[in-house]
Amino acid sequence: MSQPGLFISFEGIDGSGKSTQARLLAETLEARGIDVVLTREPGGSPGAEEIRALVLQGDPDRWSARTEILLFTAARRDHLERTIQPALDAGKVVICDRFADSTRMYQGLSRGDLRAMVDQLHSLMIGVEPDMTILIDMDPAKGLSRALSRQTVEERFEDFGEDLQKAMRAGFLALAKEYAARFEVIDGAREIDEVAGDVLAVVQTRLEKAVQS
Amino acid sequence: MSQPGLFISFEGIDGSGKSTQARLLAETLEARGIDVVLTREPGGSPGAEEIRALVLQGDPDRWSARTEILLFTAARRDHLERTIQPALDAGKVVICDRFADSTRMYQGLSRGDLRAMVDQLHSLMIGVEPDMTILIDMDPAKGLSRALSRQTVEERFEDFGEDLQKAMRAGFLALAKEYAARFEVIDGAREIDEVAGDVLAVVQTRLEKAVQS
Repeated sequence: MSQPGLFISFEGIDGSGKSTQARLLAETLEARGIDVVLTREPGGSPGAEEIRALVLQGDPDRWSARTEILLFTAARRDHLERTIQPALDAGKVVICDRFADSTRMYQGLSRGDLRAMVDQLHSLMIGVEPDMTILIDMDPAKGLSRALSRQTVEERFEDFGEDLQKAMRAGFLALAKEYAARFEVIDGAREIDEVAGDVLAVVQTRLEKAVQS
Repeated sequence: MSQPGLFISFEGIDGSGKSTQARLLAETLEARGIDVVLTREPGGSPGAEEIRALVLQGDPDRWSARTEILLFTAARRDHLERTIQPALDAGKVVICDRFADSTRMYQGLSRGDLRAMVDQLHSLMIGVEPDMTILIDMDPAKGLSRALSRQTVEERFEDFGEDLQKAMRAGFLALAKEYAARFEVIDGAREIDEVAGDVLAVVQTRLEKAVQS
């Protein structure tokens, strides 16, 4: 019996540990002989990485909120067509560090009330949601200190104060309620291994359901 | 009395002479003391030119039709915000070599039946049409031989056979009927000066109406 494809996204505020958890989950599933594609947004395919560079490099004000959303949606479309969908069609587990929920949060919340536009654009041009979304939830004060301790060249999305991080945490939790069927909220304010254990447990449950169905 | 802004686009198949006519119109209006911004798509602002380069350079199959439409729409949004709208707000005449009608034609016609999607995306993310659109109409056999006599590095959109050019001419003429209030169809298969005279006459009429209103 062939393994069915499963599309898992990780979401969370900066410093929540979601990227680490995505990687750990990929390693654990691979060690069990499951075909995994670990990818991320923005980016995740050669074309989408080029668009990512165009958006994130240079003056932060060079693109308006609307233009930026269009560029991220173009990158997501390319990523979906070239990386995600082929892997799902081949029965693989796709683990994606951020997907459309991040756009709903970061663009919709931080750059004006564009959430309705983001949703319309998503359903017109993308039309796909993950089978499951793991929200690594964490108190922003902890997340922020973790994010600031890292050095990256693309710090635009980490250059937010604690108040905005709090609003984003609340926004992610609201998305988790809005899309309750696919969201799993995991407490990220614990040891990495504990968090990874909880992540694996909820994924395991979904994988078993997917195999049975 | 301040001069009201006017947004004029030029459309037509490759080799129709629309770019020449756009430039001649700009020169004539400027010689009469009218503030003109001559621009083009894809491109027309620094950010949009970067997106243009991303789309048009490299392997023609690197972007899917949908991703390409998103990238062109991102470029158009940037062009609109950074070049077109500020010029219109300052009361200038904007003359644009191609605008959304070209996307309706080229993407909608040549890469699958995506016209409805193009229209929905346009009304969601752009929402602006030119005050007038001048279609330089020409028999494709004449247009094609003109286009092939030019050397450009971005020949993707000129790499079409005569049958497709015929379909595109028909498509532009159909758009001229669909948007009859803003379209002016000018016979481009004549001497450049004759065509330019007709273009100037229809623009003159619209400018006078705009001043009176």
